Amino acid sequence: MSMVLKVIGVIRSPYKRPEDAPRQGRLSDEISCLEISGEFRPGMDGLGRHACLIVLYWLDRADRALLTATPPGETEGRGVFATRSQNRPNPIGIAVVDLVRIEGGTVMVKGLDAIDGTPLLDIKPYSAAIDSLP
Amino acid sequence: MSMVLKVIGVIRSPYKRPEDAPRQGRLSDEISCLEISGEFRPGMDGLGRHACLIVLYWLDRADRALLTATPPGETEGRGVFATRSQNRPNPIGIAVVDLVRIEGGTVMVKGLDAIDGTPLLDIKPYSAAIDSLP
Repeated sequence: MSMVLKVIGVIRSPYKRPEDAPRQGRLSDEISCLEISGEFRPGMDGLGRHACLIVLYWLDRADRALLTATPPGETEGRGVFATRSQNRPNPIGIAVVDLVRIEGGTVMVKGLDAIDGTPLLDIKPYSAAIDSLP
Repeated sequence: MSMVLKVIGVIRSPYKRPEDAPRQGRLSDEISCLEISGEFRPGMDGLGRHACLIVLYWLDRADRALLTATPPGETEGRGVFATRSQNRPNPIGIAVVDLVRIEGGTVMVKGLDAIDGTPLLDIKPYSAAIDSLP
């Protein structure tokens, strides 16, 4: 099976440039919109029953060749798998967000830090039982 | 930037066939091994300081054309984005796991439900502050 990702939609957000985005979207009250492309909208059926979602997106400005990164506020580099740096071999962003409202093919969410125009990869319902740790 | 995923390693697990795997790995005490390929091992530096990790993997037996699924125990189908079905346009599996031990290029973890041989995509440190909800 091909490992080429499909773009299922686009993220519209108030963050137009990388420097506009909060370091972690969960710290912000801004609303972002997930605009699902027409052909993938049947996949949204029933989405509205979930209060919290996991959003996967493609960090298209990332450097996929880097294997070390220096986290903000630190001086020493470490392996990218030990950081949340966007620069990594497969720059897939993950965010746990609150579902605000659905209008047609648009899902409004709170808690996302993606830049405006970021390609959307997947939406999954968040489950505290399996996605969080005590 | 190409949206072709890179395989950074392979998951070795006690689950040899799909029907062997628990529905959610968090319910199991079995140990799985993330075997990181040589070229990506520099990305592991510092990984041992994290007790919990997020593992991303590629569900290579998924049907990427399906947009609806019927969750176990239910009778009615719904959109795949409202389910955790492995059949979805971008079949990326996510698991929050406990780090057990690291030996060379092998990361032993608890709480994963992936089938033996599953391609590994990414490892990120889990952060309760950003990855879980109250």
